[in-house]
Amino acid sequence: MVVDKSFLVQLAAAAAAETLPRFRSPVSVDNKYAVGFDPVTEADREAERAIRSVIRSAYPDHGILGEEHGSENLDHSHVWVIDPIDGTRAFISGLPVWGTLVGLMVDGKAKAGLMSQPFTGEFFYCDGEAAFYERQCTGEAGETKRLKTRDTAALADATLFTTTPALYKEAKRLAYDRLEAVVRLPRYGVDCYAFAMVAAGFVDIAVETGLQPYDIVALIPIIEKAGGVVTRWDGGPAEKGGDIIAAATPELHKAALDLLNAS
Amino acid sequence: MVVDKSFLVQLAAAAAAETLPRFRSPVSVDNKYAVGFDPVTEADREAERAIRSVIRSAYPDHGILGEEHGSENLDHSHVWVIDPIDGTRAFISGLPVWGTLVGLMVDGKAKAGLMSQPFTGEFFYCDGEAAFYERQCTGEAGETKRLKTRDTAALADATLFTTTPALYKEAKRLAYDRLEAVVRLPRYGVDCYAFAMVAAGFVDIAVETGLQPYDIVALIPIIEKAGGVVTRWDGGPAEKGGDIIAAATPELHKAALDLLNAS
Repeated sequence: MVVDKSFLVQLAAAAAAETLPRFRSPVSVDNKYAVGFDPVTEADREAERAIRSVIRSAYPDHGILGEEHGSENLDHSHVWVIDPIDGTRAFISGLPVWGTLVGLMVDGKAKAGLMSQPFTGEFFYCDGEAAFYERQCTGEAGETKRLKTRDTAALADATLFTTTPALYKEAKRLAYDRLEAVVRLPRYGVDCYAFAMVAAGFVDIAVETGLQPYDIVALIPIIEKAGGVVTRWDGGPAEKGGDIIAAATPELHKAALDLLNAS
Repeated sequence: MVVDKSFLVQLAAAAAAETLPRFRSPVSVDNKYAVGFDPVTEADREAERAIRSVIRSAYPDHGILGEEHGSENLDHSHVWVIDPIDGTRAFISGLPVWGTLVGLMVDGKAKAGLMSQPFTGEFFYCDGEAAFYERQCTGEAGETKRLKTRDTAALADATLFTTTPALYKEAKRLAYDRLEAVVRLPRYGVDCYAFAMVAAGFVDIAVETGLQPYDIVALIPIIEKAGGVVTRWDGGPAEKGGDIIAAATPELHKAALDLLNAS
């Protein structure tokens, strides 16, 4: 085990205390860009501040890389990578499919991480050895399940998620379109939640372009330890972001890469 | 009041008992089309059966129009319109943004309805006089709020949702694209949940094409009594489905219709 579950829970709780009260807080459109009135920006900043504080207390010399407050100690072997709210557009639209992402890289490789959705009470995490799902909500309180990707091997059987095809330009759009054309069901719009559903076995492929490290590092170990594969489109490591694909099985991953890289 | 809240709660509970246990039930892709192994089809059928049974017990002579089990007594002044699972693609992908829809039409006009999302514990409803939101889940148990659309008047300030632009063909695609081009934020993929978020004041426009009556009837009174406007793209009544737009305010609705119908 690389990290205690209790520490990951502590990180998620610190973030939730900042994000959840600001989720669905009523904001007049006219005031959205007035100083101090943008709940998602506030939630983003305050959640990352809270996460960093928990990390610094426990591991003062570890590195931290965050979306909102920059980087520190990146030369340390252990680096925490934070996206306080992945899916800000879902957040501002009231949809419970955003998440808090915190990943741990050890010597450049994503080893542990969490994705927390505090409105639904869902918590996806990897402690370095295995990947788990837990929910704190009516009817499912405290039950912990191992995450396991689906056994989908063929693109024709696959459900695919991406934020929107409009993000892919020129050759990348052609590559994405080739992939979308052969899957069973393409769907749009869900950010980190789609990657979590790959780990949970309900979605087969999540594909994105132009990701930052903090968009993906936390999700890599969760998906890998559930049986999936996460890489760049060129097959390289996903830790630095870029064009990313997660697939439920190695066979499906290879088939998708072949199509994305065909010319 | 057209209908008691307690009756709407009873309808939602009857549906949830059939949908929720089948949501995220593990299904091998290979078995998805084997007889009796498709959880979404089973959930759809059984939930509608349960809803119909509750309606028949209380109002044996009322009309019923459902997605799965057809129609009966449609010549009655009161007709219940049922979509047991709106958003089946979200359902099979593990995303908690599907919903159960039950609407009540009186003399052809949608007067009351509910949208229930049992995984998140969310319940949006209109009793004929006003529209409400309630959540049964940790931290928010039982609190009832009035639904109120946002005061967005200009397209440039609007968030817009649609399932996917790929559903619009030829002239309709051009019309949709004109609208998408001028809004602040277009997003894809959420079915009934986007309409619920219009009523709740977090989304400004939801637009769809080719809807059935059971996709929209339940949502009409919820949005109207929250302050919004729901019509066909040509401004006609939305009860019979077709090309539908819901907007947060009359001003926004007019601006969107002008653009959709420009040529």
